[in-house]
Amino acid sequence: MILAEIITIGDEILIGQIIDSNSAWIAQRLNECGIRIKQITSVSDDKSHILEALNAAAQRAQLIIITGGLGPTKDDITKTTLAEYFNVGFKRDEATLQTVAKIFERYNRPLLDINIRQADVPENCTVLLNKNGTAPGMWFEHQNRTYVSMPGVPFEMMYLVEEEVIPKIKQHFQLDSIVHHTILTAGIGESFLAEQISEIETSLPAHIKLAYLPKLGQVRLRLSAYGGNEEELKTEISLYVEKIVAAVPEYVVATEDKPFEQAILDFMEQRRLTVSTAESCTGGYLSHLLTQHAGSSAVFLGGGVTYSNNLKTQILGVLPDTLQNHGAVSEQTVREMAQGALTNFGSDYSIAISGIAGPGGGTDDKPVGTVWVAVAGKNRVITKKFLFGNRRKQNIERAAINALILLFHILKEDHC
Amino acid sequence: MILAEIITIGDEILIGQIIDSNSAWIAQRLNECGIRIKQITSVSDDKSHILEALNAAAQRAQLIIITGGLGPTKDDITKTTLAEYFNVGFKRDEATLQTVAKIFERYNRPLLDINIRQADVPENCTVLLNKNGTAPGMWFEHQNRTYVSMPGVPFEMMYLVEEEVIPKIKQHFQLDSIVHHTILTAGIGESFLAEQISEIETSLPAHIKLAYLPKLGQVRLRLSAYGGNEEELKTEISLYVEKIVAAVPEYVVATEDKPFEQAILDFMEQRRLTVSTAESCTGGYLSHLLTQHAGSSAVFLGGGVTYSNNLKTQILGVLPDTLQNHGAVSEQTVREMAQGALTNFGSDYSIAISGIAGPGGGTDDKPVGTVWVAVAGKNRVITKKFLFGNRRKQNIERAAINALILLFHILKEDHC
Repeated sequence: MILAEIITIGDEILIGQIIDSNSAWIAQRLNECGIRIKQITSVSDDKSHILEALNAAAQRAQLIIITGGLGPTKDDITKTTLAEYFNVGFKRDEATLQTVAKIFERYNRPLLDINIRQADVPENCTVLLNKNGTAPGMWFEHQNRTYVSMPGVPFEMMYLVEEEVIPKIKQHFQLDSIVHHTILTAGIGESFLAEQISEIETSLPAHIKLAYLPKLGQVRLRLSAYGGNEEELKTEISLYVEKIVAAVPEYVVATEDKPFEQAILDFMEQRRLTVSTAESCTGGYLSHLLTQHAGSSAVFLGGGVTYSNNLKTQILGVLPDTLQNHGAVSEQTVREMAQGALTNFGSDYSIAISGIAGPGGGTDDKPVGTVWVAVAGKNRVITKKFLFGNRRKQNIERAAINALILLFHILKEDHC
Repeated sequence: MILAEIITIGDEILIGQIIDSNSAWIAQRLNECGIRIKQITSVSDDKSHILEALNAAAQRAQLIIITGGLGPTKDDITKTTLAEYFNVGFKRDEATLQTVAKIFERYNRPLLDINIRQADVPENCTVLLNKNGTAPGMWFEHQNRTYVSMPGVPFEMMYLVEEEVIPKIKQHFQLDSIVHHTILTAGIGESFLAEQISEIETSLPAHIKLAYLPKLGQVRLRLSAYGGNEEELKTEISLYVEKIVAAVPEYVVATEDKPFEQAILDFMEQRRLTVSTAESCTGGYLSHLLTQHAGSSAVFLGGGVTYSNNLKTQILGVLPDTLQNHGAVSEQTVREMAQGALTNFGSDYSIAISGIAGPGGGTDDKPVGTVWVAVAGKNRVITKKFLFGNRRKQNIERAAINALILLFHILKEDHC
């Protein structure tokens, strides 16, 4: 197994100004190739400390991925530090210079000396052309170790990893073949799911591993098969995918790795179904979960964020009597919200949510965390009550995801 | 200056399953006390590697903060590794045992041996009682270094840092007094802002530092004053706050550290003003930004997420002719959306957004990233066109933030 380490360079991370989401993303991509991350290290723009981190990483790993510290200003010292580490001088990379010049031309800005120097790279480096920015990616081989340096800007780094680094890694290292297959489940807890598929899990051959990746109401099951012929691994793994799907059919959302909402949108689009929303306590978050995905407009018609009672009546047609007699957080209200959305917005399905997100607004009867959800289809409205916790943000997230799970179950019943 | 390091332990981070947001949060809290983070290291649940990381950190830092690996299962080995590192045995902590027992009682679950062992801690440890979970925080002093071990669950860790760790750090270390004051600005770029306040910045005495913390249309200015009498520092720093506010009054959203949306909500609540939204391409994200904050219901009445043209007409009263002649992404449409929200939802102000978030839907005339924003008040509607980039998620975020900035400017004009 090839071991890798990630070194992120930059004061922003160490003062807590930004969260290092790059490392998790890189770790996932490398894991998919069968490379294990041994350590992730964040250090500041300090030459001796960067050198120390490089030396330490080279003791433990064969592949060292470095991000950050490649900007044009004088506090960005990764490049000069790497040249010192490898004990080499600099060369100018013409392809990078052209990219930099083009970017400055496009924005009509003068190309300064410090920008031109972005095209200077350590002599022993193979340039990985960065089409999205001025700092090139760099690939080094040195004393039986491979070093890759990339800018820390996430979309520049992601482009380089996908288009340049991963293909080069697959060429350079003798990686065992590895095939992954992800099954997305929703509405079933990790331990209950494990119970349901325990026989399949114990029957797995030694070269196929099963990982449980839980996240807010969803569990991703990732089957990974290692070694030998890739096509045979694919065939073998697909048999286990079929078995798992057959064991828990009602909870399987997708047999590929995609976001839960995307899976619902795809399911509905394939059947030319539409959905609308009626949100109170989730305040637009449910609509956002759907509309963050490209192509959602084919399925999602829109919705009402009816925070005030007036708007519940006006946009959704909830009866003032219902609000008066049962309150905004009640089965009756959420039912009328869902029916109102269905009728007024003209969708095939609708989702309504009303609850007490907190921290204020709770009572003995309806404590903070109480949430009513309704899903309406052409012939019926299903309602469900939840009692989450005290934290507002989590209550909003859980309410939205659980509402989508309810929609998903009804879609399965109606259309499978 | 006291130097600290953070070590996070757990395979989840190294396989990229979770993003390490704990470290940034801890770094911020320690920075506020005047402690600098030298390195952040993530390692897996592997004894020899954890020992190596502890040894390396102790070479560089006086304070070592460790999170993760404190669960009850056998892959959680932080506690036994720490005992080995300090070369001590275990003792049972009665207060922790009682907390654990209570938690199991509340959920009606049997207290197993592995749960009882959560109350066993290395002999040389001072327990930091974790009221939110079963794994205690632990404080160690060893060979002139301080080690703090906490669970990796964010809200447990945050509780321990705020209630236990920071107060103990302030007692234990001879920290210089330090006073921070944050000014939140919006709608002005970092370099232009720096130009506007350059005279004030150069006039700062050596013991007062100014940091620029930019984030999507906002820049936080953090003034930090070091050393001497805390009350005097506060008085001194507030003079510079006044000067900065006087230099760029139109861009100052708040003279304390709070989220931008919260500052707008507070401004409006103090003046008993209400707002509603009419969102197309942002798909609920703008409403979510407002409603994620407790107390938003006093200001935010609700909104329409009008993804389809039909809903723009039905909920907001946009004329079919307008949509026909000018398109959904146009000044005319967004103006009618804002006016419709104001009238139909009965708010004092309204925000409307319509654009092409992408990746599809762009044309030569209106490429992906084109966004129209309108803000309506009682007597006027202000519109603004933006051209963002190609990435859907960023287009949604930028559109929402820039719409809030437009609202903020109009609020300032109307009410300051």
